[in-house]
Amino acid sequence: MDSWLNTLQTDTPQEGFELALKLARMGVKYTQPSDEARATLRDQYADDHAALTAASHVVAVNFQTVAAANNWWR
Amino acid sequence: MDSWLNTLQTDTPQEGFELALKLARMGVKYTQPSDEARATLRDQYADDHAALTAASHVVAVNFQTVAAANNWWR
Amino acid sequence: MDSWLNTLQTDTPQEGFELALKLARMGVKYTQPSDEARATLRDQYADDHAALTAASHVVAVNFQTVAAANNWWR
Amino acid sequence: MDSWLNTLQTDTPQEGFELALKLARMGVKYTQPSDEARATLRDQYADDHAALTAASHVVAVNFQTVAAANNWWR
Amino acid sequence: MDSWLNTLQTDTPQEGFELALKLARMGVKYTQPSDEARATLRDQYADDHAALTAASHVVAVNFQTVAAANNWWR
Amino acid sequence: MDSWLNTLQTDTPQEGFELALKLARMGVKYTQPSDEARATLRDQYADDHAALTAASHVVAVNFQTVAAANNWWR
Repeated sequence: MDSWLNTLQTDTPQEGFELALKLARMGVKYTQPSDEARATLRDQYADDHAALTAASHVVAVNFQTVAAANNWWR
Repeated sequence: MDSWLNTLQTDTPQEGFELALKLARMGVKYTQPSDEARATLRDQYADDHAALTAASHVVAVNFQTVAAANNWWR
Repeated sequence: MDSWLNTLQTDTPQEGFELALKLARMGVKYTQPSDEARATLRDQYADDHAALTAASHVVAVNFQTVAAANNWWR
Repeated sequence: MDSWLNTLQTDTPQEGFELALKLARMGVKYTQPSDEARATLRDQYADDHAALTAASHVVAVNFQTVAAANNWWR
Repeated sequence: MDSWLNTLQTDTPQEGFELALKLARMGVKYTQPSDEARATLRDQYADDHAALTAASHVVAVNFQTVAAANNWWR
Repeated sequence: MDSWLNTLQTDTPQEGFELALKLARMGVKYTQPSDEARATLRDQYADDHAALTAASHVVAVNFQTVAAANNWWR
């Protein structure tokens, strides 16, 4: 896998949240590397509330990590 | 996405809890950006106890982050 | 929503646990504000072990937050 | 509810783990107070691996809290 | 239950990971004490990817606790 | 099991994320040691969005541990 994560530091909380999203998606990509397969799956879960909540849960866990790395942008 | 998260600091724990709710919803919105699609899904899960508990779980995880950011409003 | 969360500080661990329960329920109430709808759902999940375990899980996550806020009542 | 949680301090890690178990069960009991109903549910989930894993998960989350409260019994 | 957990300290991260596994299994054993029943269940979930992922999740939560107890073996 | 985890320290966040992936997979391997059985299961869950999200969740939990061990690569 190419380099995609050099730092957990971000300028703003919002960029940190978006990095958390990226971490959640990369957690999927390492298991299912096919872009086409993931696009198909995304179409399915975008209308499935349990799946969207589960995705938001993973983002929340990663956001804890990123926020701590940034000392909560205090 | 427009700017929506400039700080994790809030004046009160309740505002922090409401920010945690917003983080949970934004975790969904980034995956399903359509307001209409999300409104339809919300109608479904508002009467589904497993879904409501799952939503509350994501809020709880985000509330951990916000509470730490505010030094637990001590 | 009226004011319902002014502090995370409690006198005892048990009061902290009960606050964690309240946080878990408020996480549901913000999504499903109808008292009647929530009462109906509670009747369903009170005899569903997966639902009860899931509810206890959310309480546990919130109890982590409350316990940290109180420096674990040391 | 009577007094059942006066401290998170325990003498040993094992007692701390057992307290985490108690916290997990109390999280259920507050929602389903009937001893009879909970006994019936326990008979069901004792032979359901998903339910047992979910129960162990809640214990693990509570054990994080109890271990931190005891400074990990270092 | 006999004594099985006297310390969270381990010499290496790997031993810590294996302790996290033990904690996950003990979380099950306290609810289902029968060795025979647990062996039957293990045969079922060893070929069920959702169950294996759920088991790995519980190990991960316990590993957080053990790693913190060991100051991350720094 | 042979030695596979000597340290949680990594040079970069990306290597830390990849270690978190390894921890998630080892959590499965200890329960299902057969390489063949795990390969079969992976083929199944690689096209199952709930399973991929669940896998990403476990990685996220382990990444919290690894990131803390590395002081978030600050």
